[in-house]
Amino acid sequence: MAPPMATDTQNTMDTQLTNSSVGLTIDGVAARRSKAKQMNWGIAAHTSSDMFKGPGHGKPKSKRWDYRLNEESRSREPGSLKGAARYLKNEGIVNLGGGLPSSQYFPIEYIDVKVPKAPYFSEDETKAQGALKRIGKYDLAEGRSNYDLHVALNYGQATGSAQMLRFITEHTEIIHNPPYQDWQCCMSIGNTSSLDMACRMFVARGECIMTEEYTFVSAAETIRPMGVECVGVKMDEQGLLATSLDSILSNWDPSVHNNAPKPWLLYTVPSGQNPTGATQSEKRRKEIYHVARKHDLYILEDEPYFFLQMQPYTGPNAPDVPPPASHEAFIKTLVPSLLSMDVDGRVMRLDSFSKVIAPGLRVGWVTASEQIIERFRMHAEVSTQNSNGPSQLILYKLLEEEWGHRGYMDWLIHLRLEYTRRRDNICYACEEYLPKEIASWTAPMAGMFHWIKIDWQRHPWKGSKSMLEIEDEIFHAAIKRGTLTSKGSWFRAESNNPGNDMFFRTTFAAAPNEKVQEGIKRFAEALKAVFQLE
Amino acid sequence: MAPPMATDTQNTMDTQLTNSSVGLTIDGVAARRSKAKQMNWGIAAHTSSDMFKGPGHGKPKSKRWDYRLNEESRSREPGSLKGAARYLKNEGIVNLGGGLPSSQYFPIEYIDVKVPKAPYFSEDETKAQGALKRIGKYDLAEGRSNYDLHVALNYGQATGSAQMLRFITEHTEIIHNPPYQDWQCCMSIGNTSSLDMACRMFVARGECIMTEEYTFVSAAETIRPMGVECVGVKMDEQGLLATSLDSILSNWDPSVHNNAPKPWLLYTVPSGQNPTGATQSEKRRKEIYHVARKHDLYILEDEPYFFLQMQPYTGPNAPDVPPPASHEAFIKTLVPSLLSMDVDGRVMRLDSFSKVIAPGLRVGWVTASEQIIERFRMHAEVSTQNSNGPSQLILYKLLEEEWGHRGYMDWLIHLRLEYTRRRDNICYACEEYLPKEIASWTAPMAGMFHWIKIDWQRHPWKGSKSMLEIEDEIFHAAIKRGTLTSKGSWFRAESNNPGNDMFFRTTFAAAPNEKVQEGIKRFAEALKAVFQLE
Repeated sequence: MAPPMATDTQNTMDTQLTNSSVGLTIDGVAARRSKAKQMNWGIAAHTSSDMFKGPGHGKPKSKRWDYRLNEESRSREPGSLKGAARYLKNEGIVNLGGGLPSSQYFPIEYIDVKVPKAPYFSEDETKAQGALKRIGKYDLAEGRSNYDLHVALNYGQATGSAQMLRFITEHTEIIHNPPYQDWQCCMSIGNTSSLDMACRMFVARGECIMTEEYTFVSAAETIRPMGVECVGVKMDEQGLLATSLDSILSNWDPSVHNNAPKPWLLYTVPSGQNPTGATQSEKRRKEIYHVARKHDLYILEDEPYFFLQMQPYTGPNAPDVPPPASHEAFIKTLVPSLLSMDVDGRVMRLDSFSKVIAPGLRVGWVTASEQIIERFRMHAEVSTQNSNGPSQLILYKLLEEEWGHRGYMDWLIHLRLEYTRRRDNICYACEEYLPKEIASWTAPMAGMFHWIKIDWQRHPWKGSKSMLEIEDEIFHAAIKRGTLTSKGSWFRAESNNPGNDMFFRTTFAAAPNEKVQEGIKRFAEALKAVFQLE
Repeated sequence: MAPPMATDTQNTMDTQLTNSSVGLTIDGVAARRSKAKQMNWGIAAHTSSDMFKGPGHGKPKSKRWDYRLNEESRSREPGSLKGAARYLKNEGIVNLGGGLPSSQYFPIEYIDVKVPKAPYFSEDETKAQGALKRIGKYDLAEGRSNYDLHVALNYGQATGSAQMLRFITEHTEIIHNPPYQDWQCCMSIGNTSSLDMACRMFVARGECIMTEEYTFVSAAETIRPMGVECVGVKMDEQGLLATSLDSILSNWDPSVHNNAPKPWLLYTVPSGQNPTGATQSEKRRKEIYHVARKHDLYILEDEPYFFLQMQPYTGPNAPDVPPPASHEAFIKTLVPSLLSMDVDGRVMRLDSFSKVIAPGLRVGWVTASEQIIERFRMHAEVSTQNSNGPSQLILYKLLEEEWGHRGYMDWLIHLRLEYTRRRDNICYACEEYLPKEIASWTAPMAGMFHWIKIDWQRHPWKGSKSMLEIEDEIFHAAIKRGTLTSKGSWFRAESNNPGNDMFFRTTFAAAPNEKVQEGIKRFAEALKAVFQLE
């Protein structure tokens, strides 16, 4: 697969925008902050990305999506109690209105968290020279920090804390600079929940969502019980095919989809897609966005693996590509997101700290137009409420107080190189062990997954065994030899349509390199035995 | 309001059960644990309350609720990938199947948390003699603890961690000892989310849910956008009236409810209800459960304030009731829950750490029959996923490793006495300042709220002003004098039916006692001005 080619076109796109729309640079953060109004960092303080964004002069406003919101989402009304909070600004007012507990009953005096100092990120370096960050209960009142236990352990806003929303908004502007004016971020409890909430905003029983033909299992399991069908869009090694998307929509026949109307919601994982590992090139993303405009689609861009984009794959016998020389160079290596092309505000982007910091934190965020974020936030207020306080505090100490945006970029480059080594390792193992006559693959450019195609037609008994039976035979032959993989058929978007091809998903994210080598070797032995190759 | 009279009847109930169903005592925890099988405390380890419960000999099995589950919940199917996890038990297997990130990329070496030693719970005592608990990354492998960052920061099970689920299951058995066999707990991200999930299991657009006539605003705001109507059940100073519940159901007329079928789902907050502060007596709860059996209802028992049950109110001129003399005496002061009476398994109980530890943790749990918990868990897997790791770790260090069940009881008694003082303070202020000719109240037995009834008929212009106009006049007169309260009308279950009575909700949970005094004094002045009493 070719290396990312984002740089040139991205530059052209940038220079087409007016000067004030160029977006935020890392160096520009301090200046912008110094010009911002004094913030309220207190308990459940009202916040919004608008407090932290650039003015967006010259950018268009987002389209309105009233006709895409479902009955549930349209009917949410602002609560009376939240409206009353405006009186709390009155000097000297005694608040007998709200129901917040007193922080004197939070049984934690302080939390210390030891984290790496950028750029010394290894576990050994952290042990030797990491930074110890203290989170006190009343740091805010005592002038030690803008965020403390007294705030984070009480109820919060569904947007997330002002403290973390600022970092996230700046980060989103630095990386994506959405090309419309009224974009906002809202924190979430992770992309699984964000997708669940998005579906409950947009679709109704009897409708369809388009997804990659092989899709994230949990996404399909979120979507189907809502009475919504997944329609699989064909893929190649760059993921979702814009031509297939266009063809499905141009030829939609309700009668073959239980009378479902023509769909208009696309769920896609553009980078390091789960399970295929495919990454859409910039050209492919533009094609998809073009089709989205043609058919007036709304796009859910699920991007947990965006920062697991890796160095170009050069193979076992060629030198590695040198790492990015600067933060700016690093940002330019990243394939531009759909959000970064979204002049209409037709993309809700789902971001998460799960793959780049830790999944157990349960913290992510969504980016979309003001109208969509307002609906999302109102749903969160009566369901997930807000990202939890301890994780927001830990992220604040790490990302804001210790690393800053520069240190975070260093960390993301570190991850890029680590995942590159892991990806190279599994690809080398495949080249060494897998029988090429039946197994083929493309080295993934992003994510955690390596997707191996098996030419099942070469199975000795293919006349008397179905594709799914042969897949099952391989799966269990590998387990017998000590390797657990995932069957490709588990990931089919259309669960009753197995397709014509056979794949196995392997991951290189977790096991140590030598174990991955051993795992692939065993998988190769299983394949050889099943196909009677030796 | 009378003091809790739970003790005698609870004893009778206990002795009626067979010996093995008496339930767990705090002293019995160690013995039960010592007999348990060796646990797997690792990453995303499978867990269930069944691993930690007593055998429940002699207890009946729960009813099945297939006919109450909606289409969404019924159609959830177990995922293929989760099924494959069983092969991970194979000796020496290399896992290339799952998508978990490696803990070496979690940028936290350790977390220290300083917490009170029981029973020295004040902030000053904690500062002077609190315990510092260290949470390392690899404590489990290094034999220092059963729970660590490497586990808690990775993906987890929707049940919650085995580590915390054990404590929660034991706690639930100690306090409630559900009188049927197949009860289980599942951790949640708080009761707001649990209610949202429960509604999405049980009801469909066009149906109704019964609630207290004054209900938790957020609950109503969760329910209504789903196209579900709240039907208000009349209340007295002990909360929801079983007679009103029976009467609504016995006389259900679909034509006055947009053709909704007779409802069968009851949402109730039995203790310290928000907004009324009312607590159902044991007798009332039995009456409600009796009506629930008569009409085959399913009950959502939302109990965030259960452990904010307070000492009996004796007034400003009588001595205080002495605090509970032992943990066992304390448990007996608590009004028995609906769960503790639930021989049919028709109650889903919603518990939360929000009011007893801290809301920012976003950790709670639900208790219900195995069938219901299984459906709840499967929904969580594709939405909220699981309670976040840092909060579970903090709770584990605090509740399991530092306090244990005994220390936690000490803490809950401490809270009981603290909230008693706060409740007494607001009641004394009301007795001192409020004009009795128009304001009346019952001292709350539990929770955070004091509910004040206003005889609006005495308003000088009551002929030309509506009740809601007078309520608004009082609300703003109080703000003008520097006190923010909440209007009773905001809490009406039936939003287009204001009822005939006027109330204001005040809270004594947050503001310091002298501020609450001042707040009530100002509210009294507002009332006197509006009603021209002086």
